[in-house]
Amino acid sequence: MKQSIGVVGTGRMGANMARRLKDCGYPVTVVFDVRPEAAQALAVELECRAAKTLEEVNSLASVVLTVVTDDAAMNGIFSESGDSLLRGARDHVFINCATVSPAIHREIANRAQQQGAHTLEACMASSITQARNGTLYLMIGGPSPVFESVRILLSHLSDDGKLLRYIGPTGTAAQVKALVNMVMNINTAGLAEGLGLGAALGLDLTLLREVFGQTGARSGVLQTDGEDMQNRAHDCYFSAAHAAKDSGIALQLAKEAGLHLPLASSTLEQFTRMVQVGLGELDKSGIAELTFPGRGPKSGSGV
Amino acid sequence: MKQSIGVVGTGRMGANMARRLKDCGYPVTVVFDVRPEAAQALAVELECRAAKTLEEVNSLASVVLTVVTDDAAMNGIFSESGDSLLRGARDHVFINCATVSPAIHREIANRAQQQGAHTLEACMASSITQARNGTLYLMIGGPSPVFESVRILLSHLSDDGKLLRYIGPTGTAAQVKALVNMVMNINTAGLAEGLGLGAALGLDLTLLREVFGQTGARSGVLQTDGEDMQNRAHDCYFSAAHAAKDSGIALQLAKEAGLHLPLASSTLEQFTRMVQVGLGELDKSGIAELTFPGRGPKSGSGV
Repeated sequence: MKQSIGVVGTGRMGANMARRLKDCGYPVTVVFDVRPEAAQALAVELECRAAKTLEEVNSLASVVLTVVTDDAAMNGIFSESGDSLLRGARDHVFINCATVSPAIHREIANRAQQQGAHTLEACMASSITQARNGTLYLMIGGPSPVFESVRILLSHLSDDGKLLRYIGPTGTAAQVKALVNMVMNINTAGLAEGLGLGAALGLDLTLLREVFGQTGARSGVLQTDGEDMQNRAHDCYFSAAHAAKDSGIALQLAKEAGLHLPLASSTLEQFTRMVQVGLGELDKSGIAELTFPGRGPKSGSGV
Repeated sequence: MKQSIGVVGTGRMGANMARRLKDCGYPVTVVFDVRPEAAQALAVELECRAAKTLEEVNSLASVVLTVVTDDAAMNGIFSESGDSLLRGARDHVFINCATVSPAIHREIANRAQQQGAHTLEACMASSITQARNGTLYLMIGGPSPVFESVRILLSHLSDDGKLLRYIGPTGTAAQVKALVNMVMNINTAGLAEGLGLGAALGLDLTLLREVFGQTGARSGVLQTDGEDMQNRAHDCYFSAAHAAKDSGIALQLAKEAGLHLPLASSTLEQFTRMVQVGLGELDKSGIAELTFPGRGPKSGSGV
C-alpha cells in the first residue's frame, strides 16, 4: 500500500514534488506552509488538507517531505517546544529535502529518534522542472533500513531511481550536496570571469562558448549558464542568495576541518556581494553582472 | 605540392607535430632547438637536418612551426638583430604554436611583415598525445589568406580539420587560448578544493567524483584530473608552472581592461604557490597537494 504523504514547505520545489507524487498515485493528504495562503492554494489544487499546525500534518500523513529554506527553518519545524513535527511523530518518516548543514540533519535525526520517528536526508541536485517531472538527482543520507522503507516513493521522484544515490549515514548526503554546490558555484564564478573578459576583449562570445565547450574549459555550468550570462537572462532557477548560503555551508565544513580553500572563499565573496548590492534574487548566472564590463552596480568598472 | 616544413623548438609538442607531419607525407626538412642535442636526436629520427642557426631553418623550409616556451623565447627567435627567423624570411609562413601573450603575437606579426613574411597563431588546447595523433584542437589567429595557404597542413594536425577553428585577426587566438586556460585552471583549483574537503570529511572520493559528474559540479577537468587528484598521480601533461603562466597572461589582459577577476587571481596565487614550494613541474592536478588534508609542503595543515 502506498504511504500517505504530507509536504511541509510548499514553495515551487515542494509543490512540484507533491504534484508528482499525486500523479504517481500516492495519497497526498496534507500540505503545510508558514504562508497559509500558499498551502491553501496547493491544497485546493491537490484536493487535500491545508494543515493549520505541524502536529496536524503528522495526524494525516505517515511520510512527510520537508522542503524549507535553511537551518533556522529546519530548527523551527522540528522544534522541541510548541507546535512541531516532533508531536505525534512515532513511526513517521521525515524526508528532509532542503539544502541545510550536515550538523542540523544530525541534530534533527536525534530529536526525531527520541520520539520514535525516522529521518532521511534527500538532498536534491536539480531544480524545479525536474521536481515536477520526477527526474530529480537525489542523494540520500540516513539509516539504510529507513531508506529501503521509502525507496519506491523516492524512485518516483528520481527517474525510476536512476538518479537516486544512497550516500551514507545521516549528514553525509548534505556534505556531498554542499561540495557539489561549492564546486558548481566556483565553476559558475569562474565562467563569468572568462566570458566577462572575453566581452572586454571584444571577442565573439558565442564562438568563445563553443571553444570553451570543446576544450578543458568545458563544464556543466557552461551548458546551463553560459548563454544566460551572455544574454543577461537571469530568471531565477537557483538564486545567488542560495549559492551564497551553500558555499557558506561548505566553507564552514572546511573551517572545522582546518582547510584553507581560497577559490571557495572568493566565490562566497562574489555571491555575497551580489546579495549586498541587491542582486541576490537573480539566478546564479547573474554573477556575470559583476564581471562583464559595463554591467553591474558600478557601471563601467565591472566591479 | 606539399610545403617543406621546419620546426623550431623540439620539445615533446614540437617533436610530435614534426612526426605527425612526416607521417602525413610532408617533407620535414629541418629542426632547431636551443638545446642542440635535442634537435640532433630528432633530426636523426626524422632523417632531416638539425640546423645550427635560425637563418638556416629558413633556407631549408618554407613553412616553419615554432613551439617555444614563452614571450621571451618568441622575442628571441624573432629577434631584430643577430641570428633570427627574420633572416631570409621572405614569403615564409611562420605558424606560432606556443601559448604566449596576444601582444607578442602582434609584435612578431609586424616584424615578419616587414621582412615580407607571414605569421599565424596556432594555439593548441590539447596535449602531447594529440600532437602525435594529429588530433590537436587548434585555434588560429591571423590574416585569413595566410590561414588558407596552410589550411591543409593544419588539418593534418587537427583530426582532418574537425578540430580546427579560425578565430580572427592576429592576437585573438591567443586571447581565446588564455581564456580557455584561465577558466580551466579555475575549474581545476576548484575541483581540488572540493575533493580535498571531501577527503577531510572522510567521504568516498570515488562516489563523490561520480556525483560531481552527474550534477552541476561536472566539468572537463573532473574527467581529466579528478581521479589523478584522488590518487596523487601527477605525472606532467600540463604543468602547474604553465598553468601559472597562462593564468598570468589572462590576468594581464584583465588588468588592461580594468576588470577585477577574484577567482582567476586566487587561482594564479595557488599555482604560483605550487611553483614557490617546488611543485611547479607536477601536472596541474598536483594542485590537490595544496588542498587535501595531510598533503602538501606543510603536511597536516593542508596549506
